[in-house]
Amino acid sequence: MDDHVRRHAEVLVDYCTDIGAEDDVLIRAPTAAEELVVALYEQVGKRGARPVTSWRNARAGRAYARTMDSGNYRTKEHELAAMEETDVVILISGETNTAEGADVDSEKAAASSRARGPILDERLDKQWVITQHPTPAHAQKAGMSTEAWTDFVYGAIDRDWSAQHTIREQLVELLDPAEEVRIVSGEATDIRLSVDGMGTLNDDGEENMPGGEVATVPVPGGVNGEVAFDLPLRRNGRETHDASLTFENGEVVEHAAGRNEAVLTSLLETDEGARRVGELGIGMNHGIDRVIHDLLFDEKTAETVHLALGDAIEECMPDGRESNESAIHVDMLVDMSSDSRIELDGEVVQRDGAFRFEEGFDG
Amino acid sequence: MDDHVRRHAEVLVDYCTDIGAEDDVLIRAPTAAEELVVALYEQVGKRGARPVTSWRNARAGRAYARTMDSGNYRTKEHELAAMEETDVVILISGETNTAEGADVDSEKAAASSRARGPILDERLDKQWVITQHPTPAHAQKAGMSTEAWTDFVYGAIDRDWSAQHTIREQLVELLDPAEEVRIVSGEATDIRLSVDGMGTLNDDGEENMPGGEVATVPVPGGVNGEVAFDLPLRRNGRETHDASLTFENGEVVEHAAGRNEAVLTSLLETDEGARRVGELGIGMNHGIDRVIHDLLFDEKTAETVHLALGDAIEECMPDGRESNESAIHVDMLVDMSSDSRIELDGEVVQRDGAFRFEEGFDG
Repeated sequence: MDDHVRRHAEVLVDYCTDIGAEDDVLIRAPTAAEELVVALYEQVGKRGARPVTSWRNARAGRAYARTMDSGNYRTKEHELAAMEETDVVILISGETNTAEGADVDSEKAAASSRARGPILDERLDKQWVITQHPTPAHAQKAGMSTEAWTDFVYGAIDRDWSAQHTIREQLVELLDPAEEVRIVSGEATDIRLSVDGMGTLNDDGEENMPGGEVATVPVPGGVNGEVAFDLPLRRNGRETHDASLTFENGEVVEHAAGRNEAVLTSLLETDEGARRVGELGIGMNHGIDRVIHDLLFDEKTAETVHLALGDAIEECMPDGRESNESAIHVDMLVDMSSDSRIELDGEVVQRDGAFRFEEGFDG
Repeated sequence: MDDHVRRHAEVLVDYCTDIGAEDDVLIRAPTAAEELVVALYEQVGKRGARPVTSWRNARAGRAYARTMDSGNYRTKEHELAAMEETDVVILISGETNTAEGADVDSEKAAASSRARGPILDERLDKQWVITQHPTPAHAQKAGMSTEAWTDFVYGAIDRDWSAQHTIREQLVELLDPAEEVRIVSGEATDIRLSVDGMGTLNDDGEENMPGGEVATVPVPGGVNGEVAFDLPLRRNGRETHDASLTFENGEVVEHAAGRNEAVLTSLLETDEGARRVGELGIGMNHGIDRVIHDLLFDEKTAETVHLALGDAIEECMPDGRESNESAIHVDMLVDMSSDSRIELDGEVVQRDGAFRFEEGFDG
């Protein structure tokens, strides 16, 4: 077995989830990630736990969507029952063809997401981690050779997570007591998010491997302004370019896109919570040296921020406060590397990608 | 999509299981059967039902068994919960390497089987079908080219199941009222099974695709004599050659094998029920023209009979009679083509492979 694959499995089982003999482990993985599944079974066996693997199969999913009536989508009770009895979930991406969903009707994709809602809710209550196995298809999407992509992925995963934590903690200390975040980028983005009393997450890579962001959730109703996203929004194999959203009192009131606007529209119509922000994330992983059009990595990239539509991050919600609920949680990215700033309660803490506590900050 | 694969999926979804919009469908499939999984999703979508696929992965299973302690095997509660909520189960074999389990400790394989017992019980209460997708590894095992093997598999599946039923019904009418079956083959096999009052199954291919056998279950305690098996017993990638069993009052009291006897021993020690016969099957599928060392096909081959150790066929049990229970159900084959006979209550109904109602019978 390849050492990188074995090390990846060790990080997932030991560091991210700390699996023990009492655990029922659910792995969800695509065909092309078979090597990592084999490595995980080796590690899970060492811990005396019990794994099953649910086969994520984009070709099968497409074939199903094309013959299924939109009206027939219902929650898969057997999948939900399995999730209820699961202790640890390991979700692996790594496609054979990232465009497999390109000819699936977006209304059906949304119906499928809605039907999965209760399963997502249940999963978020477990110990879970999302990761990626390097495949030629993702290398292609990133415009990289398979070998360079493989090095990139393992480079992002095999890191000193404790040193990274300390760097991010400086931002957490500024953000946590703040009442309002303002994000300005170019002409098209100027948005204010009330975060008064909300928790702040220092992402150590336990739920996303690789990790490396700082995140919070806006106060319900407390999002106003406009935001233009710099990276294509990919959803079920299709891309929406130049998406922009206008918020009033926490809700999307206008949306537009330069290509495939229907994908964005159908996303917003998934359910009530899909029109609200469930996360503000700030990328701080200096180990990821470029945006490669893969959100698991991109959202951790330094000099970017992202907003997620949909389900709110539970860990950031203060006790007793109701969080935004949705069957979706879709991250959208803004490049902050130039002509941009982050303000906390009117004070600039990042300008053109450099934080106040970093070299090169020009307040 | 290949027409044979699509037709195979149609047979499974329409003929074998008759899936409807109310059904939660569980598919269990190995990597190499991906084409059939895609075809099944297309058909299941047409019926408006809800599929999930559990990835059978022999490499992962081996990696797990090698690091797992025998004492740690317990029933996977999440897998059991999924099975409980399932309506239809489609089990697909079709390996990449049929010897993947060759270096797995047989004690661990038995512990794993025991732990799966409750899941097997639950599955047997559902609508289920076992089938096979043609792969190069199974072609190799059969000593055939991949193309010839593929033709063989689809030739066995694409049959006129109603005409086959009529042929088998002639044996059912003889066997059903009989009190005792005696099977004699060469010097080494002479065994008597009491079948008084037990049901007789005419296998139409609804649970095994391909189908084509007639089966019954012996009365508990009513098996006496010796049987020598003509085909290697394959179990978890290992072969036991020249296996023989001696029964007294329904239980195995002696066993031997020419090679890998430990596999047979560990099988018999799985649980109480593993030492008793759960099935007597008589192959009658004239469409399968040779024994190819794959039991799904071999046990249907004309001019063979088989005994299964372990769990009894529920459909053959009269109301109120307790059936043999076990975590295993392992079929073992006897060649009846020469120097052999089947007697029912002392009357010869098959000699040297030819039935009384067939041409060439020499009573």
